[in-house]
Amino acid sequence: MIQTRVLSVNAGVQSLVADLKQRARELKVAISTGAAGETVIDAGAAVPGSLEAGRIITEICLGGYGSVVIGSSERLPRWPFALTVRSSNPVIACMGSQYAGWQLTNEPGEPDYFSMGSGPARALAGKEALFKDITYADQSDTATLVLEAGSPPPEALVRRIADDCDIAPEKLTIIFTPTQSLAGSVQIVGRVVEVALHKAHELHFDMSQIVEGMGTAPLAPPHPDFLTAMGRTNDAVIYGGRVTLHVTGPADAARALAERLPSSTSEDYGKPFKEIFSRYDGDFYKIDGMLFSPAAVQVVALESGETFSAGAVNPDLIDASFG
Amino acid sequence: MIQTRVLSVNAGVQSLVADLKQRARELKVAISTGAAGETVIDAGAAVPGSLEAGRIITEICLGGYGSVVIGSSERLPRWPFALTVRSSNPVIACMGSQYAGWQLTNEPGEPDYFSMGSGPARALAGKEALFKDITYADQSDTATLVLEAGSPPPEALVRRIADDCDIAPEKLTIIFTPTQSLAGSVQIVGRVVEVALHKAHELHFDMSQIVEGMGTAPLAPPHPDFLTAMGRTNDAVIYGGRVTLHVTGPADAARALAERLPSSTSEDYGKPFKEIFSRYDGDFYKIDGMLFSPAAVQVVALESGETFSAGAVNPDLIDASFG
Amino acid sequence: MIQTRVLSVNAGVQSLVADLKQRARELKVAISTGAAGETVIDAGAAVPGSLEAGRIITEICLGGYGSVVIGSSERLPRWPFALTVRSSNPVIACMGSQYAGWQLTNEPGEPDYFSMGSGPARALAGKEALFKDITYADQSDTATLVLEAGSPPPEALVRRIADDCDIAPEKLTIIFTPTQSLAGSVQIVGRVVEVALHKAHELHFDMSQIVEGMGTAPLAPPHPDFLTAMGRTNDAVIYGGRVTLHVTGPADAARALAERLPSSTSEDYGKPFKEIFSRYDGDFYKIDGMLFSPAAVQVVALESGETFSAGAVNPDLIDASFG
Repeated sequence: MIQTRVLSVNAGVQSLVADLKQRARELKVAISTGAAGETVIDAGAAVPGSLEAGRIITEICLGGYGSVVIGSSERLPRWPFALTVRSSNPVIACMGSQYAGWQLTNEPGEPDYFSMGSGPARALAGKEALFKDITYADQSDTATLVLEAGSPPPEALVRRIADDCDIAPEKLTIIFTPTQSLAGSVQIVGRVVEVALHKAHELHFDMSQIVEGMGTAPLAPPHPDFLTAMGRTNDAVIYGGRVTLHVTGPADAARALAERLPSSTSEDYGKPFKEIFSRYDGDFYKIDGMLFSPAAVQVVALESGETFSAGAVNPDLIDASFG
Repeated sequence: MIQTRVLSVNAGVQSLVADLKQRARELKVAISTGAAGETVIDAGAAVPGSLEAGRIITEICLGGYGSVVIGSSERLPRWPFALTVRSSNPVIACMGSQYAGWQLTNEPGEPDYFSMGSGPARALAGKEALFKDITYADQSDTATLVLEAGSPPPEALVRRIADDCDIAPEKLTIIFTPTQSLAGSVQIVGRVVEVALHKAHELHFDMSQIVEGMGTAPLAPPHPDFLTAMGRTNDAVIYGGRVTLHVTGPADAARALAERLPSSTSEDYGKPFKEIFSRYDGDFYKIDGMLFSPAAVQVVALESGETFSAGAVNPDLIDASFG
Repeated sequence: MIQTRVLSVNAGVQSLVADLKQRARELKVAISTGAAGETVIDAGAAVPGSLEAGRIITEICLGGYGSVVIGSSERLPRWPFALTVRSSNPVIACMGSQYAGWQLTNEPGEPDYFSMGSGPARALAGKEALFKDITYADQSDTATLVLEAGSPPPEALVRRIADDCDIAPEKLTIIFTPTQSLAGSVQIVGRVVEVALHKAHELHFDMSQIVEGMGTAPLAPPHPDFLTAMGRTNDAVIYGGRVTLHVTGPADAARALAERLPSSTSEDYGKPFKEIFSRYDGDFYKIDGMLFSPAAVQVVALESGETFSAGAVNPDLIDASFG
């Protein structure tokens, strides 16, 4: 056997991060060095950023093991462009890297900061219980973190992040994309496959059995208001997302997964996300977790060759959300 | 700040031009050296050329700052393949490079020649008033010019082009694609976003406010007759093109732009282009300039988060034109 | 004229094969050295393989002179992902390389083995009469063979393959994809343009006149049963495939080709392939050869600019086949 490289999500994004830096002006992102020596990439706060930056950052979120394409789509005639995400390593790409599961916050006495960390660095830090379930950990001498945030973390937090990743801060790259930005809108809608996997995990589906993931969702128009922007990007997935997963294991489990996976199985389904969020007084954690999933899913059971489909795209709610 | 390269459309196409040369046989283009020492690439006159050559040449037209994809499309069931163009730097890519705005003609006593120059070389020569409006000029020691033409320019004209670009003729590459050719059909339909920007400019919309452009249009079947070929490629955009622009600045201006942008706002709308052209006795400049724009447009106002849509694809006129 | 490389399908795939090897773990393929020293790539027998491996292998089948994209599609709402194949050198890519026309079998006394060889190596061996009709032969010091098979060929057969290609076994790469595998499902559906060309050849259409080929077909869900898997991948093309060919030569011949090309012209049209196969007691060669073609075709006659369309996608039969 020829020796093959073990999958490393941090190594996997090196060429994408280099691309982002080299094409910074074209992509309208700003590269700087932070106080701890880390590389900071602003993809939409002090600079405009771009949809193409968002596309590359989404591939970085996927640890380099997934492709993201912005193309035309006829599914929603009023919204003619969509994102398509595909990975033949969906568990490592989406759960091991893309999922925003690493809680990053200041300690008492430090400047206020809060963000949920996404991207390859999570798999070095391994702070989340999730990593045991997917039996994945990365080893790498560089780390890349992606934040859906309006500003980069303060120095003390950056140093803790680097420590948690067991690397020098100089080896850490932090990319941040505001929710309201062009890159942010792509980067969040680009989670269409990830939310399907995350919900499958919540439903106790065996992660090791998900072998292929692909999905598509309409490009949400950005909005300057944070809540509206957050609402639209969530709606793009919840009411406009379509996902196909290929799974191994018993066909019955695949059927059950398909039936429970679409967003329409949630009691909170049926209103634009921003409205749901307000109904719960802005407490994200009161929203039914089952809402966070694609509108339409297809689960292909490789064991039996059966395809189980459930849910449907909801054009009216996309229109209500996107305006 | 890490120093990033200033956007240079002539530098931006170097790898694309090298690709075209290296893959000349596969792409069915012919590379030769002209009388002044310039590189001449025939993409469909003495050689067949190809759709893939057309795709690469369209990316060259965009100065290397846009992507062009040929893919399947369901918008027009009878015409199942379409072109999708996208740029996060649409003003530089489409107006600074792709627009065919540089009038190239022989001087008295020289062999007859006329063509409108397109591509990166325009931004070196800076002959057009347009460049002041978009505040863009390129600096580069190589130049690439694209011509929708059946033959390359004669030596004296080539020397003037090189002079205007302030480079030696040996540093100039001239690509020509006949309107009737496979590559030509792609290259012209590939202007779907550019015509939207050009019309926005005619409508005095502030060019600096257009930050993203993407569009799609059906692949027009080539025709051996020049006028029919020209008609079809124009109809692909005018009756089949759909464009989305993201703009900054006042939402009212975005709304006004959307309302005025579709081809249907023109008094000449409603017949295949070839018929319109004949009606004006073949005088291009008598045709209402407002006709040259996509059938359907969407303008996303980043200031307010509103999306303004107007116009619609016209399948009957595409059928009438494509046959 | 700058010297350009002659089209070599074996040289054309070297970077794709290197990619497959380097990304073996990500693509879930296994690389080993066979008994004769050949490189063996298992893309779905002892290892899972992947859709992305299948995509790359399909580009290898095309000799490096075609592109294969997996993307979303709205043509068949129940089957939202499709494959799109495109080549500006369709005769060399599809007939000179992709067509599975090289009969590979054991000699008496050797272990039983049978497979139809596909891919670039065919153009080195030149064993098939077809190569005279397309006037193509490759010269290369490496060879790549693709087999739709559950196991690699035994040593003696490998040595004969290498001999036929006039290379050392160490210079031979053999990729095998079981029909039932993820990569196999992509690789077979990826023949949507090839079957159109092969049928055109059977219909005595002049191969030298086919200058562009593109096609799309739904991704068939894999099935663990060989016959069902074979049935689905064939149905994806026969009932779900759409192809556009650009041809030179008389428009009348183009029109005749379009009329005779769709699968619906076959007397065996109208049932899932597996049923047809059973009806003929599993004797492939009793099936009407005219069945093996896309559902819908479009032939663009460059001579006259006319487009001739015939056939139609059959969603009911796709549903009946895919389940």
